[in-house]
Amino acid sequence: MSKEITSRQEDYAQWYNDLVLKGGLADYSAVRGCMVIKPYGFTLWENMRDQLDRMFKETGHVNAYFPLFIPKSFLSKEAAHVEGFAKECAVVTHYRLKNDPNGGGVVVDPEAKLEEELIVRPTSETIIWNTYKDWIQSYRDLPILVNQWANVVRWEMRTRLFLRTAEFLWQEGHTAHATSQEAVDETTKMLEVYASFVEEFMALPVIKGVKTESERFAGAEETYCIEALMQDGKALQAGTSHFLGQNFAKAFDVKFLSKENKLEYVWATSWGVSTRLIGALVMAHSDDQGLVLPPKIAPLQVVIVPIFKGEEQKAQISEKVAPIIAALKAKGISVKFDDNDNSRPGWKFAEYELKGVPVRIAIGARDIENNVVEIARRDTREKTSVSMEGLTDYVSSLLDEIQENMYNRAKEYRDSHITEVNEWAEFERLLDEKGGFLSAHWDGTPETEEAIKEKTKATIRCIPLNNVQEPGKCILTGNPSIQRVLFARAY
Amino acid sequence: MSKEITSRQEDYAQWYNDLVLKGGLADYSAVRGCMVIKPYGFTLWENMRDQLDRMFKETGHVNAYFPLFIPKSFLSKEAAHVEGFAKECAVVTHYRLKNDPNGGGVVVDPEAKLEEELIVRPTSETIIWNTYKDWIQSYRDLPILVNQWANVVRWEMRTRLFLRTAEFLWQEGHTAHATSQEAVDETTKMLEVYASFVEEFMALPVIKGVKTESERFAGAEETYCIEALMQDGKALQAGTSHFLGQNFAKAFDVKFLSKENKLEYVWATSWGVSTRLIGALVMAHSDDQGLVLPPKIAPLQVVIVPIFKGEEQKAQISEKVAPIIAALKAKGISVKFDDNDNSRPGWKFAEYELKGVPVRIAIGARDIENNVVEIARRDTREKTSVSMEGLTDYVSSLLDEIQENMYNRAKEYRDSHITEVNEWAEFERLLDEKGGFLSAHWDGTPETEEAIKEKTKATIRCIPLNNVQEPGKCILTGNPSIQRVLFARAY
Repeated sequence: MSKEITSRQEDYAQWYNDLVLKGGLADYSAVRGCMVIKPYGFTLWENMRDQLDRMFKETGHVNAYFPLFIPKSFLSKEAAHVEGFAKECAVVTHYRLKNDPNGGGVVVDPEAKLEEELIVRPTSETIIWNTYKDWIQSYRDLPILVNQWANVVRWEMRTRLFLRTAEFLWQEGHTAHATSQEAVDETTKMLEVYASFVEEFMALPVIKGVKTESERFAGAEETYCIEALMQDGKALQAGTSHFLGQNFAKAFDVKFLSKENKLEYVWATSWGVSTRLIGALVMAHSDDQGLVLPPKIAPLQVVIVPIFKGEEQKAQISEKVAPIIAALKAKGISVKFDDNDNSRPGWKFAEYELKGVPVRIAIGARDIENNVVEIARRDTREKTSVSMEGLTDYVSSLLDEIQENMYNRAKEYRDSHITEVNEWAEFERLLDEKGGFLSAHWDGTPETEEAIKEKTKATIRCIPLNNVQEPGKCILTGNPSIQRVLFARAY
Repeated sequence: MSKEITSRQEDYAQWYNDLVLKGGLADYSAVRGCMVIKPYGFTLWENMRDQLDRMFKETGHVNAYFPLFIPKSFLSKEAAHVEGFAKECAVVTHYRLKNDPNGGGVVVDPEAKLEEELIVRPTSETIIWNTYKDWIQSYRDLPILVNQWANVVRWEMRTRLFLRTAEFLWQEGHTAHATSQEAVDETTKMLEVYASFVEEFMALPVIKGVKTESERFAGAEETYCIEALMQDGKALQAGTSHFLGQNFAKAFDVKFLSKENKLEYVWATSWGVSTRLIGALVMAHSDDQGLVLPPKIAPLQVVIVPIFKGEEQKAQISEKVAPIIAALKAKGISVKFDDNDNSRPGWKFAEYELKGVPVRIAIGARDIENNVVEIARRDTREKTSVSMEGLTDYVSSLLDEIQENMYNRAKEYRDSHITEVNEWAEFERLLDEKGGFLSAHWDGTPETEEAIKEKTKATIRCIPLNNVQEPGKCILTGNPSIQRVLFARAY
C-alpha cells in the first residue's frame, strides 16, 4: 500500500480521519476548527450540490444570496433561536487594522469599533426574515420559495473533519407561506427530496421522522429529519426540515393581507443539508482499503491504468484505449487514463482504491492480443476479464450495479441494526455490543429523554413518520407510552 | 409604466440604482454595505458563474474551498499585501455571546476572546499559500491549478450595489508553478479567458492591458486587467489576473525540489472576477425603459404574454401556445408563459422590459386566426408580426442576433470613445465633455500619474497589451514618453 490506513477494527475514528486526509478529500487548516476542502473532496461536493440544486429547482425553488453578517440584535429577536446559537458564534467587532505604534506588527484599530457587533451567520433565518418583511405585503407575494448555498460558522469546541467544523458549506431553504398547512406540506416535501437524494445518489438508506421537542431546531415548531446509520453502529442526522410556524414572522413583524383582506402573520419553513453529508458518505460505505464512493456522485467514475514495459507498448495501449475513453465520455461517464510514468501500476491500483474510484480498468500488452481488459469494481473488489467488444455498455451497467449494490449493502446493515428492545438492561447491553437503532418505548417526557442520554449517551434520533401507535411501558421509567421511538448513539 | 425609472440623462447614478432595485436584481440589507442578491439577480449570476466555471475547467482548473477566516498574522507576512488590505477588513475578536447580567439582551462574552484575531478574507492568497506549503514538495506536485468560488469582505466606506459592496461573491484562482514563464503564461491565459467570457457572453467589448505599478494588486509583480466602458463614459475594471512572482512563496516559505534537484521558491498567479460584473452589465447595455440583458446569460430569454378577454379565449391561447413552449424548451431556450390574471398585458410588457427579457411574444385571439404572433425584441424595442410556422427557429436566430447586436452597439460606443489627445487643455475638456478612454503620453512616473489623478480624477486604466511604442511628450509634464496609455475616470 502506498499510504497506511488504520483499519476500522483497530480505531474507527482514526480510520475515518485517514480516509478523509489520505483520500484527498480535506485537510486541516491553520484556523482552529476550519478545514480546507481539497479538489477531490470539492468535486464530490459539487456533484452532490448540483444534483440537490436540480431537485430544488424541479420543486419550484430559486436561489438567492443574503449577507454573511447578522446584526447582533437580530439574533435576540427569537428567544429560542438566540438561546441556541449565541454560545457558539464568531463575532465581528472591528473593521480595520493598523500598524502597532509599539512596533508589534498590525493590531486591531480601537477607533474602528463597530457600533453594533456583527455575527457571522450560523444560519440565516433572522437576516432573511428581516428581508422578507420588505418582500411580502399580500397573499399574491406568497409563497416565497428561496434557497441559499452558503458558508456558515458555528464555533464548535470539538471539531471533526466534515462531521463538525467551525465553518461549513451548506444550503438553507427559507420559504414563506400563507397558511400553516402549506408550510407543513413544504416541510415534508423537502424531507422527501432529501431522502430521495441521499438514498438514490448517496446510496444510503435513511429513516424519516420527527425530532422530539428537546432535539428541535432553535426556533422551530417541528423538526423533521432523516437519520442514517454508520458502520460503527452510530446514527448520523443527514438532513433536517423545519416547520417554523409563525415564530420568525412574529419576531420580525412579517404580515400579509390575506385573500379575505385580513392582516396575518406569514408561515415559515427552513431546511438544510451540509458538507457533513460527506462525512456520512465516507463512514457508511468505505472499507479498510479506502473510500468507496457511489458512482452517481463519484468525482471520477472510471480509471484506466495501462500496464506496459517501454515506450512502444505504452503507445500501443494508448492507441487502443483512445476510442474506449471517447466512447465512455460520450455516455457521460467520467474517465481518467493514468499513463503517468512516475508510479508503478501497483501503486496506482492502491491509490485509486484509496480514492474510491468505482471502476478500474487495467490493460496490458497481452490483454490487447486477447482483446480483453481487466475490470476491478471497488465495492466488492472483484476482478473480471472483459472483452473489449461492448465494453462501454458493460461499464455503464456495472456502474449502475455498483450503485445498487452499495445501497443494498448499506440497507441490509441498517435493517439488521434496528432492534426492538423492551428491557433496560438489554437496552444498555445492545448499545455497547451492537449499536444501531434501538426501537423502544418512551414515556414522552424530556426528563426521561435526558436521563437516558446521561446514562447511555444515546439520544432519541426520531419518532419515525407513520409510526405504529402501540401502547407499552417506557424502557427506563416503566411509565405508560403510546409508541416506540428510535434511540441511538450519534455523531 | 408600472415602476418609475429615472432616465440616464436626468441622473445616471439614480438610473442605475433604479434598475438594480426595481429590476429585481438586488436589495439593500440591514447590514451596512452588504446587499441581498434577489432570485432574478442571482439566476443571472448563476448563468455567468456556470459559464466561467466551464471555461476554467476546460483550461485544466479544479475547484477547492479554503477557510473564510485568516489569522491576523498571515496578512502581515507579505508587506504590500497587508498595506493593501489592513485598512478595510472585518475582524473577528470573540467567539461567544452571553446574556447581559445587566439585562441588556445578549452581549459579547469578554471571556470568549480569541488569542489571535481572525480576519474575514478580503482575498485568500495568504491562507492558500500557507496551505500550499503542505501540498508542494517536488516539481511533480506542480502546477497546482485551483479556483475557489467564495464570498469575501472588504470594509469599503462608500458602497454601491454590485459595484462596490462590503461583502461580494467572486472566484479567485490561485495557481502554483515551477517556473516564472509558466506563471506568466497562466496569468495571460486567464486574462484571455476573462476577455472571451465578457465579450462573448456579456456582449461587452474590453481592452486588455497591464496596470501601472501604483494600480497593481497588493502583492503582485504585474497586474493584467480587462477594462470596459460604461454609457456615461466612465471605465470599469471587469477582471484582473496577477503574476505574483515568488512573493507569496517567500512569505510562506513554499519551496519545491526542481528536476535539477535544487530547492526553489514556487511561482504564483491569482485571478478573479466578481459580482461587480453585474454592475458592468447593467450600466453598459440598459436603457431608460430598464435592463437590457444579453440572451446568453439572461435569467429568462423569452416571455409569452397572452392577450385575452374571458376564460374561453385564455384557454384557446394556452392550447395554441403549449407546443410553442415545448419546442422552445427543446431548443434549450428558457421561456415563461405569463397568463397571470392579476395584471394587464400593458403592465406585463413594461415589467418584462424593465427586467430586460430579450424577446417578448404577445399572442391574442386575432393572432390565432391569422396564425401569427407579435414579437418584440428588447435591444431595439422593435416589434414584428411573425408566422407561427418556423417560430422556434425564428426566435432562436433572433436571440443570436440580439446578442450580436448588443455587442456591436457597445463596441461602436466604446470605439467612438477612445480619443488620442496631445494637449493638456484638450485632455481636461474631453474628460468633462465626452468621457471615455483618452489615449495620451505619460512620462512613466507615479508622481505624474498621481498629479493627473488629483487634477482630473482620471486614472491610468491600463497600458494596452501589444501597445505600439511611439515616442512622444507626456500630456502633463511634457517629459519624454515611450508610449501612449489609456486614461479614464472609472468606477
